[in-house]
Amino acid sequence: MNRFTYHVLSTGGQPPAKWLETMGTVHKDVDYIHIREKNATAKELLNYIDSLLSLGVPAHKLIVNDRVDVAWTQTIGVQLAYHSLNAEMVKDFFPSLLVGASVHSVEEAHIATSAGADYLLYGHIFPTNSKPNQTPRGLSALEQVVEASTVPIIAIGGILPWHVPLIQQTGAAGIALMSGVMNAIDPLLAIQSYRKEEIHGQV
Amino acid sequence: MNRFTYHVLSTGGQPPAKWLETMGTVHKDVDYIHIREKNATAKELLNYIDSLLSLGVPAHKLIVNDRVDVAWTQTIGVQLAYHSLNAEMVKDFFPSLLVGASVHSVEEAHIATSAGADYLLYGHIFPTNSKPNQTPRGLSALEQVVEASTVPIIAIGGILPWHVPLIQQTGAAGIALMSGVMNAIDPLLAIQSYRKEEIHGQV
Repeated sequence: MNRFTYHVLSTGGQPPAKWLETMGTVHKDVDYIHIREKNATAKELLNYIDSLLSLGVPAHKLIVNDRVDVAWTQTIGVQLAYHSLNAEMVKDFFPSLLVGASVHSVEEAHIATSAGADYLLYGHIFPTNSKPNQTPRGLSALEQVVEASTVPIIAIGGILPWHVPLIQQTGAAGIALMSGVMNAIDPLLAIQSYRKEEIHGQV
Repeated sequence: MNRFTYHVLSTGGQPPAKWLETMGTVHKDVDYIHIREKNATAKELLNYIDSLLSLGVPAHKLIVNDRVDVAWTQTIGVQLAYHSLNAEMVKDFFPSLLVGASVHSVEEAHIATSAGADYLLYGHIFPTNSKPNQTPRGLSALEQVVEASTVPIIAIGGILPWHVPLIQQTGAAGIALMSGVMNAIDPLLAIQSYRKEEIHGQV
């Protein structure tokens, strides 16, 4: 199997100086850094991208939430949510753009995959404070999405370090972490505590 | 001189059914319809565009606020604000896109013009409830911006029907109306009351 991949998402609830610094600290240990600041303007997003690049984060690790125009002009990826332009339209007009789609069911996964999404975020898998009133989907639902999809599935939501091998066993391609890293006292130690649990070689 | 042009902007404060209906009523008497719904998601903007097209508004009259990606995928224009991607970047990546820029000084007008903006919105010219604590810029400032610019200047802000000939005399290419039309009891009568004041032929 391919190397297990790690995405880290900003929470949308931290001051820019704080989360940008955290991303600058953890980026070498992760594959993708998501700028998930839903209230940011296009100009603010450009500033965040500039800051991350000057902190040494390579552009190919950057993914911006929702704003296809920002992603395209900055040659970075985009993460599409339900309220975004749909993946098919985006791939039609911006064929070379790295497009992730956030999905919540096998059906949504089918739609996003046939629309040309490059990978899917699926969750939330475990209970999380970000979604206090929603039942987590669990590992067997994750496994069903993985089996039904032809693109990498990244699990998100309430994932703790000891969950990593369980998620690997579903065939998921990686995990996405938000508060588990961003709100940690030592974010670098936090990401490393996930990576330490990883099973290498055949799962 | 070219025909004096009319832009109508949604206020961002009306229920979609209401302002969409108004646009469906007035579009034949105006040149551009702006979807200026700052809190709308990309998907909501697509729905508004679909609604306007099905109300008979031609795509070439449509301009969406800020979202270059929505504009590009729908083949409509975009109106850029200070917090948006800048006009130069947009014209670099989307050369055929109709790009309007909102400016507030001769200097900003210079920057937007050399960046390739197709027209500029300049204001606010007269006192308006939309900008209660800001001094209006007035007609002579408008005239200075017109003289300093090589692209059409559209005046915005607190414009009443009797102002139309005064604005024409500055050399401005047209006016943009918001509450004066959108909040009128009879929006079609409102736009016509502006057009009636227009001086035709040489100003």
